[in-house]
Amino acid sequence: MLNIALIGAGRIGHVHAKTIAAHPQATLALVCDPFGDAAEKLASQYGTRSCKDAEDVFADPEVDAVVIGSPTPLHIPHLLAAAKAGKAVLCEKPIALDMKDVVAAQTELDAITTPVMFGFNRRFDPSFAAVRSAVNEGRIGDLEQLTIISRDPAAPPVEYIKVSGGIFRDMTIHDFDTARFFLGDIVEVHAVGQNLDPAIKETGDYDAAVVTLRATSGAVATIINNRHCASGYDQRLEASGRGGALFAENVRATTVRLSNAEVTDAQEPYLDFFLERYADAYRIELSAFIEAVEADTPTPTTIDDAVEALRLAEAATKAART
Amino acid sequence: MLNIALIGAGRIGHVHAKTIAAHPQATLALVCDPFGDAAEKLASQYGTRSCKDAEDVFADPEVDAVVIGSPTPLHIPHLLAAAKAGKAVLCEKPIALDMKDVVAAQTELDAITTPVMFGFNRRFDPSFAAVRSAVNEGRIGDLEQLTIISRDPAAPPVEYIKVSGGIFRDMTIHDFDTARFFLGDIVEVHAVGQNLDPAIKETGDYDAAVVTLRATSGAVATIINNRHCASGYDQRLEASGRGGALFAENVRATTVRLSNAEVTDAQEPYLDFFLERYADAYRIELSAFIEAVEADTPTPTTIDDAVEALRLAEAATKAART
Amino acid sequence: MLNIALIGAGRIGHVHAKTIAAHPQATLALVCDPFGDAAEKLASQYGTRSCKDAEDVFADPEVDAVVIGSPTPLHIPHLLAAAKAGKAVLCEKPIALDMKDVVAAQTELDAITTPVMFGFNRRFDPSFAAVRSAVNEGRIGDLEQLTIISRDPAAPPVEYIKVSGGIFRDMTIHDFDTARFFLGDIVEVHAVGQNLDPAIKETGDYDAAVVTLRATSGAVATIINNRHCASGYDQRLEASGRGGALFAENVRATTVRLSNAEVTDAQEPYLDFFLERYADAYRIELSAFIEAVEADTPTPTTIDDAVEALRLAEAATKAART
Amino acid sequence: MLNIALIGAGRIGHVHAKTIAAHPQATLALVCDPFGDAAEKLASQYGTRSCKDAEDVFADPEVDAVVIGSPTPLHIPHLLAAAKAGKAVLCEKPIALDMKDVVAAQTELDAITTPVMFGFNRRFDPSFAAVRSAVNEGRIGDLEQLTIISRDPAAPPVEYIKVSGGIFRDMTIHDFDTARFFLGDIVEVHAVGQNLDPAIKETGDYDAAVVTLRATSGAVATIINNRHCASGYDQRLEASGRGGALFAENVRATTVRLSNAEVTDAQEPYLDFFLERYADAYRIELSAFIEAVEADTPTPTTIDDAVEALRLAEAATKAART
Repeated sequence: MLNIALIGAGRIGHVHAKTIAAHPQATLALVCDPFGDAAEKLASQYGTRSCKDAEDVFADPEVDAVVIGSPTPLHIPHLLAAAKAGKAVLCEKPIALDMKDVVAAQTELDAITTPVMFGFNRRFDPSFAAVRSAVNEGRIGDLEQLTIISRDPAAPPVEYIKVSGGIFRDMTIHDFDTARFFLGDIVEVHAVGQNLDPAIKETGDYDAAVVTLRATSGAVATIINNRHCASGYDQRLEASGRGGALFAENVRATTVRLSNAEVTDAQEPYLDFFLERYADAYRIELSAFIEAVEADTPTPTTIDDAVEALRLAEAATKAART
Repeated sequence: MLNIALIGAGRIGHVHAKTIAAHPQATLALVCDPFGDAAEKLASQYGTRSCKDAEDVFADPEVDAVVIGSPTPLHIPHLLAAAKAGKAVLCEKPIALDMKDVVAAQTELDAITTPVMFGFNRRFDPSFAAVRSAVNEGRIGDLEQLTIISRDPAAPPVEYIKVSGGIFRDMTIHDFDTARFFLGDIVEVHAVGQNLDPAIKETGDYDAAVVTLRATSGAVATIINNRHCASGYDQRLEASGRGGALFAENVRATTVRLSNAEVTDAQEPYLDFFLERYADAYRIELSAFIEAVEADTPTPTTIDDAVEALRLAEAATKAART
Repeated sequence: MLNIALIGAGRIGHVHAKTIAAHPQATLALVCDPFGDAAEKLASQYGTRSCKDAEDVFADPEVDAVVIGSPTPLHIPHLLAAAKAGKAVLCEKPIALDMKDVVAAQTELDAITTPVMFGFNRRFDPSFAAVRSAVNEGRIGDLEQLTIISRDPAAPPVEYIKVSGGIFRDMTIHDFDTARFFLGDIVEVHAVGQNLDPAIKETGDYDAAVVTLRATSGAVATIINNRHCASGYDQRLEASGRGGALFAENVRATTVRLSNAEVTDAQEPYLDFFLERYADAYRIELSAFIEAVEADTPTPTTIDDAVEALRLAEAATKAART
Repeated sequence: MLNIALIGAGRIGHVHAKTIAAHPQATLALVCDPFGDAAEKLASQYGTRSCKDAEDVFADPEVDAVVIGSPTPLHIPHLLAAAKAGKAVLCEKPIALDMKDVVAAQTELDAITTPVMFGFNRRFDPSFAAVRSAVNEGRIGDLEQLTIISRDPAAPPVEYIKVSGGIFRDMTIHDFDTARFFLGDIVEVHAVGQNLDPAIKETGDYDAAVVTLRATSGAVATIINNRHCASGYDQRLEASGRGGALFAENVRATTVRLSNAEVTDAQEPYLDFFLERYADAYRIELSAFIEAVEADTPTPTTIDDAVEALRLAEAATKAART
């Protein structure tokens, strides 16, 4: 039984709280958030303790592990403090927007042996994970081309976009990790940014993009992003190899199909956004974290993955500008 | 090269004319229809001869084979006359509505060696035929349950229904043949008729029905019929066996799928009716006929199939009444 | 917060325990099972109390409601005792195998006002429920034909089958309820039993069946059952109406599709059996029960549904024999 | 009735001969091929005349139109001679491998009013054409991203590749035209070439590639090419817009799906190659040509389309090298 504290009682914090509380090997021991009564409210839902100061989390002897869902600028301070306090850490991404900060954190973590995992939740999506397992088992021969379609249902507010670090750091970052999950090291990055929404253009950011990555193996990944999709959260991938191909399709709430005079076998829109679409992934991610902590084995993701994804985001940002 | 005459220049006659004209081993030698200038018009489309009297067809020494697409009551007179004149025959179904007439024709044909084939076109549908081949190759083990969904896009006029012989003789007759195609001899017939459309009810006929057939093998076929389907001509089947199942799905004009805020992966309606849905089947049926005639091998369907399908229609008619 | 006791710590008991424990408005207050340490073990998993005698459940003042997952012959005694003790009841099906017993229980329950619900879990399956809602909203016009495909992955042991009451009472019972859920009152029952497995034939039972039901409305439901399906638990339905059709398809663990030189867009087998396939349904069923109890509104299923499903099972048993 | 001569009796010539012969408004008047008895053999199949010298075609007063399926280096000489002789022309692509030659031809054609159409057959594929019509009708709002998947079943012989002009001129050329068909003018070209097959690498060409095109509208097209696909000829596209998306899926010979213990709803491999996959497209393309000639309206494709597609191929060749 792992006593887990949660830092951050926002939207993603609610997901983690629910996932931790429902996990048979975990206890939600403490919820921390400095704003208003957010921590207290969330804690009371699960009958557990709350605090406002993250220092209280790191100092708490009953806390074995910390899930960090605080705002991005606090990720590095929180994870380093937690790790130094000997707590196992599961940190939300992006780790930070500035590469310098991340590399500095990487150096500090090198000296610390406590497990620190990063929340690249899509690796734990049952369908994406099943495709990767099948690829690794050789079901489609050498992997040659990977296509990742990743579209959000709607753009976040312009205020958010202004401080997001740009589409490649904020949105494509997940897809960069997915590409690395399948292809390993990336040696070449091409990017085309699109300005479809004038309001987003004014912020200096793109609202859609196509990125092409060449891997050491010679395989090429294509990432197609859009901040907007009429049918919901469009999250698919195709892994195409010498001997076949594997597809992970969108997820819907039911299997219902409708036929009438206009359409046949019409399905319902995709699950709307990441909380629903990746609910299973968050659950499995937490299990993987707990398993690694309990068994003292390496965590499935590390700060190196966070560094590499950010490096690709920076390269894409540069490539798209030129 | 087989010189083929066509009797009947109606809707199904047009299909046969086109199919014969386009067939590399056949020539459309003569078109016969007693009504107005129907034969002449159709013949001129394909640059061939026409006549009004079927006797001229049977007497024509240049005619090797006859495709009979005349009205149902003329099927038996025409096919017997053609066969007696030594012409190979491909006759449209239903052969007749009265069992007595059919059995009498069967007896007469027993004494004639010229090939006489019946147009159970669905046996030649590429998808249905592929399912049956796979079943015969043992791809799904012993066949246990066959489900045939067969719905017309819209009911024919009430005037037609009144003289059609009833839904089982007119519509289910095709599905009875499909059931026999897959399961062989049928030993038990259950039927439930439905009156959904009051206008058809007044004619004393049903406009929908569910029929259950038990085969000698112990397998059971279920036929679900409806004179109406909002999405077009609904023609599917499922063959379920000990080791798996095979499905033949509906056919559409394109592979296009549409996703928007209401529906995702929505396909277009099914092809509207038999001329479109079974266009390939008519073509392949003609090839099978020509092949059997040229190679002097048994035709893939015979009057025995026509007799047996009609016998099942009669049994269903009786079963539904009780 | 509803304090719920569970009677029966077998396979379905484990499902209910997990579902109750995870429910935000429920507490698993007590687990009861007379055999060995089954109750104790299950209770300890959820940190709750256990007992061996059902009387202790009915007498416990802290217990608000009872979920009954005991063996079928104990369903009626347990539910009557619980209801008389003023506990709300959610009872697994089948309520009993003998109609006389069920009618007697129905009479007794008429005099009791405490809520008693029956576990027709499929009504709560998200896809089946969504189809029914869409039908009720008029999305496909008048419902004309309902087709229910329901195949188990493998037959239970022959010893079980001998005491199961026969395929119609044991397996089709769920589909009878589904048919009633969509069509309301049934006025006519046809049934064809199949003996595909000789070992089951020896028990005097069928291992596959096709049942046709005519509803008061004129709609017809077809149920296709098989104790065996190579691809897993085959649970589908089609509701076909005047203006369109709705399909609830099988459920799989992932959305992955595989293409290679032999197959394309191949999906994985269906979820294996009811615990997986209907996991969501059990959860939603419990919510519906709790909601009805808390709000003092009628439960979505009652003993009348149990009676009517059993009546159809008896009619099918008779019809298949003749 | 249009009298059409065919130049070139190779593989694509056979397709055109069959298509012309079967067309109700066309006559296959003459087949020309200098090699052996190729022309004679093909002509005799359709009961028409043959010749060995293309000059005889251009001089023939009975010939209204010429379909050019000669080797690529002869396309320009043949089409100019035919056009100058007043024949309507339908010319296979690629028009030539060298831009200079094409621009020169374009200038010459500017002075000639006879209709000259280029065989960008995919524009006439029923599914691709239906997607484009739906886009133009505004079914998915502003088109934002187009994804074209285009994989051949197997690479051509290395000897062919050496003289093919490279993957972008030989294979992607079709997809460039498809991109222009949907997006109009292209202002930016990115390309990544892949060397998966060492034998092709030795020729200096790529055997797979990903190309990204930005259109004047701001929309971006992504083309994913591979000389090899285990499942057949992989030809799909997705048009994604502000209000929805449209998908054209692969084509198979039947609608059959197979389920067993390993796979469910598995479909058969895609049609193997362009003669089968685009059989309908060739037929519809010919109809469009005949229609434009007969009605004296502009042909749906012109030498400008050929020039622009080649220009994109050249740009991609350069981009991939850098």
